[in-house]
Order: sequence, then C-alpha cells, then structure tokens
Amino acid sequence: MLKHYLLSPGPTAVPERVQLAMAAPMIHHRTPQFSRIFAETREMLREVFQTEQDPILLAASGTGAMEAALVNVCSPGDVVIYVNGGKFGERWGKIAQKHGLVPVEIAVEWGEAVDPAAIEKALAEHPEARAVCVQASETSTTTEHPVREIAEIVARHENTVLIVDAITALGVVDLPMDAWGLDAVVAGSQKAFMLPPGLAMIACSEKYWRLAEGARCGRFYFDLLAERKAQAKGSDTTAWTPAVSLIRGLHEVLRMMLEEGLDKLFARHALLAEAARAGVQALGLRLISKRPATSATGAFVPDGIAGGAFVKYLRDKMGVTFAGGQDRFKGKIVRIAHLGYYDVFDIVIAMAALEMALARFGHPVQFGSGVAAAERVLMRRLPEVA
Amino acid sequence: MLKHYLLSPGPTAVPERVQLAMAAPMIHHRTPQFSRIFAETREMLREVFQTEQDPILLAASGTGAMEAALVNVCSPGDVVIYVNGGKFGERWGKIAQKHGLVPVEIAVEWGEAVDPAAIEKALAEHPEARAVCVQASETSTTTEHPVREIAEIVARHENTVLIVDAITALGVVDLPMDAWGLDAVVAGSQKAFMLPPGLAMIACSEKYWRLAEGARCGRFYFDLLAERKAQAKGSDTTAWTPAVSLIRGLHEVLRMMLEEGLDKLFARHALLAEAARAGVQALGLRLISKRPATSATGAFVPDGIAGGAFVKYLRDKMGVTFAGGQDRFKGKIVRIAHLGYYDVFDIVIAMAALEMALARFGHPVQFGSGVAAAERVLMRRLPEVA
Repeated sequence: MLKHYLLSPGPTAVPERVQLAMAAPMIHHRTPQFSRIFAETREMLREVFQTEQDPILLAASGTGAMEAALVNVCSPGDVVIYVNGGKFGERWGKIAQKHGLVPVEIAVEWGEAVDPAAIEKALAEHPEARAVCVQASETSTTTEHPVREIAEIVARHENTVLIVDAITALGVVDLPMDAWGLDAVVAGSQKAFMLPPGLAMIACSEKYWRLAEGARCGRFYFDLLAERKAQAKGSDTTAWTPAVSLIRGLHEVLRMMLEEGLDKLFARHALLAEAARAGVQALGLRLISKRPATSATGAFVPDGIAGGAFVKYLRDKMGVTFAGGQDRFKGKIVRIAHLGYYDVFDIVIAMAALEMALARFGHPVQFGSGVAAAERVLMRRLPEVA
Repeated sequence: MLKHYLLSPGPTAVPERVQLAMAAPMIHHRTPQFSRIFAETREMLREVFQTEQDPILLAASGTGAMEAALVNVCSPGDVVIYVNGGKFGERWGKIAQKHGLVPVEIAVEWGEAVDPAAIEKALAEHPEARAVCVQASETSTTTEHPVREIAEIVARHENTVLIVDAITALGVVDLPMDAWGLDAVVAGSQKAFMLPPGLAMIACSEKYWRLAEGARCGRFYFDLLAERKAQAKGSDTTAWTPAVSLIRGLHEVLRMMLEEGLDKLFARHALLAEAARAGVQALGLRLISKRPATSATGAFVPDGIAGGAFVKYLRDKMGVTFAGGQDRFKGKIVRIAHLGYYDVFDIVIAMAALEMALARFGHPVQFGSGVAAAERVLMRRLPEVA
C-alpha cells in the first residue's frame, strides 16, 4: 500500500467539490444548459483575471494559449522580445521561430529575475517589436519576474504588446491585468485552477485587439478573434468543441476562489511559500532562486545525492510526487509546489518527506527541523482560540 | 478554504479505488452479477477472518452484529459474562438486558485490559453461562484485551461461547478465529475495512452453530441461521436486501488487503501505532491505556486545556478530525486513529496538528518534536535506496 501526494507544480490536486462537479452527467455544448454554465464561468473568470475583458477558454494546454497569444497579434517577420530565464521562457523563442517571427532573446541566468532595464534596452534597440513575452512565474527555476515594472515600460510603446505567461501565477499572486496594463494574460487549468490539464484561458487588452486586426500569422484552431465572437455574451459557447467537464470543474473552482476571496487566496499562497522556504532552509538546503516564486519552492539537492534518484525515491517509495529539474537543473534540484488546493498540512507533508528521504539517502538531517521551521510560519494561518 | 483529514477511529478514510468501485452503477441483488461479487467477497472475507466458516454480511452497523451474535445463541434467562472496560464493553450488558438475559459484569478500570483470571473466576461462579463477551479492542479507551488467553479459558466450557467484538481489531491485528477458537467474531465496515458505515460482518464457529439451534431470544432481521442459509454457496445472496454498493466496496477493499498481505497489513498498523505513541509521548502527553490498542492511540489532554474545545478547534479550524473522549473521559482525552487507509504521512499530519494546536492553546510545545519522534519510527517503513 502506498498513499499518493501530488506536490508537483502542475498537475496539482483537484478538490473534492471539483471532482464531483466534473463527474456530473455529460451535457451537450450547443444547449442553453451549457451556455448558462459557460457565461457564469466567464463572469467569475473576469474577477480572477481582474479585467473588464472577456477571458477566452481554449481546449488546450497552456502552451497552446501561449502560441495563441503570440500568433494572433503578430505577422511573419515581426520582432518579438522574450525573456529567457528557464524552460518556459525559452519556449517563446521556439514558438516565434516556427511562425517566422524574429525572436530577440533577453537571456537571464537561471534562478534570477529579469532586470526591467534589459527590457527597456531591447525595446530601444527594437522599437518596432510587436510583442514582449515574459513569464510572471518561471516554473522551471521557481522564479518570479517583475511583471508590473515591465508593463510600465511596454505601455510607453503603442504598437508593442506585453504577453504574460501567468500559468503558475494567476490565482497565486496579485496580477491585476487591467490595473497593470497587461495585454495578454495566459493561464492553464492544472495549476492554481486546481483542475486536470486540458483547459487554457487567455484574456487580451483593447490594445491587443486593436493590433490583432492586421496580424497575419497562420492560425485556425487558435483564432482568438473567432473565439472572441463565439464566446461573447449572448452567444456563450466556443467556436470549436469545448472541454465540457473541465469547464464544469472551472465553474466550481471559481466559486471556491471567490468564496475564499482573492486577498485571502493570495495571502494563503504567500504564507505557504514562506513556510516552504523556511523549512527547506532549516534542512540546510539552498534555494535555487534569487526571487523565489510563490507557486513553488526549488532547492538544490545536497552534493553527493543524485537528484533524479532522490525525486524518484520520494515518488515511488514514499508516494510523494515533487518535481525534479529540467535541462541544466536536471538531477540537481527538487521543486515543491504550493499552488492551488494546498494548505498547512501539505507543507508539513513536504517537509517530513524531505527529512525522511534525506535521511534515507545518508544525508545528516535533524528529524523534525524542517517541519518545525514551517510550523512556526504556518501558525499564522491558525485563528486564535475563541 | 479548509482541507479535511479524517483521523478518527471510524469512520475512516475510504481509498480512491474503493470510492470508484462504489460509484459503479447500481445492480439488482437477486441477479447472477450480484451473486458473483457476493461469493467472491465472502471467499476473500474468510481469509481476513482466518476461518473456514462463512462470514455473514448484514446491512447494519457493528452494534447490530453485536446484538445478532448474542441473540442467536442465547435464550431469555441465560447468563452472559461480559467485560466492561469502556463504552463498548458496557454495551454488551445493555443488549443482554433488553433481551431478558442475565448479564454478569466484569468491571475493568478504563484504560486497563481485563485480567484473564477474572474470566476464569466468573466462569467458575457461573458455569452455566452461555456466552462470554469481550472487545478485542475497546475503542473508547484505546485498549486491547487479551483475546487469545480468554479463548483458551472459554474453550474448556463446552456450552459457553466466546463472542468477540473485533470491530476495531479485525484487519488491524492478527486475530486468527479458527486457530484461537473464537466462537463469534464481529466486524464493521467503517474501520479497518475502509468503507462508509452501514455494513457489518460476523463469522461463527461450529460450537456457536450447535448452541444456536436451541436459542430462543427474539430476532427476525438478525436471524443468523436464516442468513447462513441464504448466503451459503450456491444461493449467494442475503435473506434481506443487502447494502449493494458497500458490498461492492468491500470486494475492492478485500482485494487491497490481500494484495498487501495480512502479515504486512498487521505490521503496517503496528508500526503506525508505535509511531503515534512515540510522537504523543515526545510531546509530553500521557497515554490513557496500559495496554494500548493498535487501532488508535489515546492521550490525556494537558491539564488546563478543555479537551472538548481542543478537539473542536482541531476539527473546525484546522480540518483535522480526531475523536475526543466519551463518558468519564469526556473532555479529557484525544484519540488518534491509525486503522485502515493510513500510512506514514497520516501520522505526520496527526503529530504536526497536535503540536500546532497545543501551541495555539498556550501549551509549551517544541515544534517538530512529536513529528521527529514519529519519523524515527516511521523510517522503518521506508525501503533502502536501491
């Protein structure tokens, strides 16, 4: 017997309420029943995106929505500036290349955040750039980029949009799209939205829609103008077949998020992240990020321990699924997620699992020390005794 | 948002596999489909009861099966000796009284196990006694009684049966019915059987069935001779409507138990109990039992803390459901379950929850100390690194 704990930065745990909502009998997507759920879902989604715009739903993973964000506003030959500080940053360049765009990379050391001055410099060198692309949270390095500061810079260029991959940021940290002037915000279902993978969300600004009019990059399934029309109020369905059960689940997820309240949602995530960092550091592990993400905490595995075997042991022998490292971090790090359906005892489990696994791998560890450091932070989440 | 952890000694957590099995479409109970599931279930149940007898399934809670065990072998006026060392022991006396039997109580201090010599003495004083009734595990005091020694004594009386309430013992500790000569063994679904409440199981020895022939206590729904006939091989159904989905769940539960293997099942429970005791004592709490149960660990709440409020805070503010105390232990104890679908991290959660709740109630506590003591024991459950 082995009980399983999903503590990876996507997919994340699905709450019982959401599982039950998704288990409801299938309904057809060209019906008033579906349109009612769909319209309510989009209404609530606006609150979470903090925008007056209508978020668009796509039956796709987050990568599909990243591509959609780019191709709907660009034409072949357009310059696209992108921040590459990890595996997801790198992906902007790959998408741009496939569509005949001209990617201009801002290379950032893994584990570091981009300096907004580098964006300013790139835009000065390429004032014709159509888009600036950045991750709000670069999951591969558990690092947050300074989106607000970048937005202020891009806003000064009237024909350049800022595209933000908020896949592990939306619903985790405060990212007010309209207030900050973000032009496209991309989210995925299997992160803070606590759903299985397969559903992506994207919201676009007026500036984006204006520039989208003349965009000539090839797209059919990902035609956001077509989706905008189909999904608009009164039509209330999708251009192509939607992921019905995931949208039912999203409807329930959004109710949960709004019941909790955005302020409390962000505060919970911040507290769990703080507890995870405290626990990991109490165990003597070094954080990989200089600007740690709120969605997941990454730490270097101690010298002498193979990170791949370590993460595999945790998953297969202890039932605890963390993420390991990708690319240049492969075999070197462990990433502990705390976005979505996570609370106090998930951090406790994560720290206890690390303690016991480190001990099993022969690393000197003081049992309970990581848990204790986390508990001291987590106490702030417990109300006073009445 | 509050995540919930069910760490009470019944109902206990239901595994995903079992939830899915119970979610299957309803089938009729007078059909070959049901009879196949039923026959397989009983076949596996024999292995868990460690008996050649056919266990009988009842749509009832454990109390119903306790009553069935008594009334099918007794006639009004019969003497029944029972061990009363807690709320469940006391129940034998209440059942006996309602059926016009003559209960002879062996009173045992709460938290202590019965001395087998007391059984010997009672049987010497009442050689005509029809039954001796005892809990294998008295859940209200988290204490195990010495069933094997009691069985050796009762076996010397050819017209007296030993009725064992194994509701929180079967599937937890080794309780080989045939080898030890137990005459009736009672179990319930919501304990080590990892199911929702509503299903009880009982197996009876040849000696029991012989004495059952002349028993005249009133019973209709709980007529075990009628059930024995209906449930026999070839008939393979129940006299009255069975709890179909619970039996489907039990079928899956038994597959899980036998896949794990009885030896490993007992070893896991013993290890979790040892870890819980170590953790609780490291936190400075005093165990309530002199012969602690493997199914649950009970500890006194520190002086100055109201146990009722403490358990309520854990449940309502932290999402962790422990059991409090009943009757004379009301408001004084906390009981942590570890029977059924429990493993390493359930004990970790239990200890971290106690640490944080004790701190919240102003009790001096060293964060991580209970978790650390538990982890040292739990390490034995983790395999070596390959």
